[in-house]
Amino acid sequence: MRLFNKVAIVGTGLIGGSLALAIKKKGIAREIIGVSRHKKTLLLAKRRGVIDKGSQNLNIIKDADLVILATPVSTIINSAPKILKLIKKGCLVTDVGSTKQAIVSKLGRIFPKYVGSHPLAGSEKRGIINAGPDIFRDSLCILTPTKNTDREALDKIKRLWLELGARVVFLTPHAHDNILSFTSHLPHLVAFSLIGTVPKKYLRFASSGLKDTTRVAASDSQLWVDIFLSSQKNIIKAIELFQENLSSIKSALKRKDKRLLAEILIEAKKKRDSLA
Amino acid sequence: MRLFNKVAIVGTGLIGGSLALAIKKKGIAREIIGVSRHKKTLLLAKRRGVIDKGSQNLNIIKDADLVILATPVSTIINSAPKILKLIKKGCLVTDVGSTKQAIVSKLGRIFPKYVGSHPLAGSEKRGIINAGPDIFRDSLCILTPTKNTDREALDKIKRLWLELGARVVFLTPHAHDNILSFTSHLPHLVAFSLIGTVPKKYLRFASSGLKDTTRVAASDSQLWVDIFLSSQKNIIKAIELFQENLSSIKSALKRKDKRLLAEILIEAKKKRDSLA
Repeated sequence: MRLFNKVAIVGTGLIGGSLALAIKKKGIAREIIGVSRHKKTLLLAKRRGVIDKGSQNLNIIKDADLVILATPVSTIINSAPKILKLIKKGCLVTDVGSTKQAIVSKLGRIFPKYVGSHPLAGSEKRGIINAGPDIFRDSLCILTPTKNTDREALDKIKRLWLELGARVVFLTPHAHDNILSFTSHLPHLVAFSLIGTVPKKYLRFASSGLKDTTRVAASDSQLWVDIFLSSQKNIIKAIELFQENLSSIKSALKRKDKRLLAEILIEAKKKRDSLA
Repeated sequence: MRLFNKVAIVGTGLIGGSLALAIKKKGIAREIIGVSRHKKTLLLAKRRGVIDKGSQNLNIIKDADLVILATPVSTIINSAPKILKLIKKGCLVTDVGSTKQAIVSKLGRIFPKYVGSHPLAGSEKRGIINAGPDIFRDSLCILTPTKNTDREALDKIKRLWLELGARVVFLTPHAHDNILSFTSHLPHLVAFSLIGTVPKKYLRFASSGLKDTTRVAASDSQLWVDIFLSSQKNIIKAIELFQENLSSIKSALKRKDKRLLAEILIEAKKKRDSLA
């Protein structure tokens, strides 16, 4: 269903490119504009029919009635003042950043009609080459309105995600970052650290267990440095709880406390089994 | 190709059941005998054609020319003396335990014709219900001969795994346990600890990152308590190296050391990308 005339997507990588494809497939916009730093990405996006027009210059977004910021977290924050100067009056703005407190605090002050979004649909893959129109279907999209959020903008952004097939949940930016620090940021950090610990010469003995456990360590490094730094305090808190948990398993193992080990593992299995 | 007359598999779970199916499919034995503590497992195994005969009583193995021990590590060790009393002269014995020093040290002393095996073909699933004849194809199987290992037994066990489609590598039990403590045991322990750290009420926000990183925490708890305890020292060493690595990432994050974080993540990504 047509919700917008012109949608501009700033950052046409995995998520931005997938959004363009999904918006096109669902007929949500008359025209889709893409902005990328990389000429190659724009050429590929146009050739694949992902975007109608593309440019390396932000000026191209000026007539959009929705701007979606899909760059790394720090770029979202740093580019906001420049984007404000370009957009027309009444333009809705959302972003798809993986942490929300720093972004919503800044963008909520800058843009009159802004809503923070976080579609939980990423993967360790990156780039428009891996984009697909269906990655949001049956996924969860967290919106992070505040008491200052424009209600009309919120309704429309919510409709956008629903049209893309996502389930929508509202959380405060604070709750979002706290929860995601456990469910996403900590697992990524642990995966980076785990593969970092395995001596290189042992990698040829990697089995599916190691591969699964560290799959997300193949994610874009710069993107994740950005995410970690943007929610530093929450993530450090999550790391410290993990460190305590790991230490207690280690000490049970040191003491050969079979019963306690069994209890810990059974409880962990129960929690893992509860995930789809 | 027929290598054995009668193969007895003690423990017809995921690996034991899959071995029975694979040995049958390849025509490696004339007859396949299964031993399980569980009547239900034996009934299912017979109904599915996994085994030709089954019993809860070990006596059934007495005419076998190959006995494969596919029970948890501690059961492999504890049942060895009883099995020695039952098998006929010249019977080959192997096991599929996930740690090798404790097992090989004991079984190598007990059985005249013993070779330790570790097919890297398990998963978080368990039971004969999940067994399949092809799980060893293109997998890696580590054999752990010692200077006392009977060469004829070694050749024959090696041929068995090759016939099942595995690539075979020889390691000392010591090297095996050291390597696997990093490539398999640590990732499992980390996965148990990671899901244990995520507050229950946050689990509904789990995305593919958390699911992959903790998939192996759905593994059988008792089996893994057993594995952890049987190679306790190696695993504690691996945990401690991981703890150091994680601490250094945490302190880089605390100091907001963007450059060091990027270096660590890039190095981790390189290692992960090198895995298939």
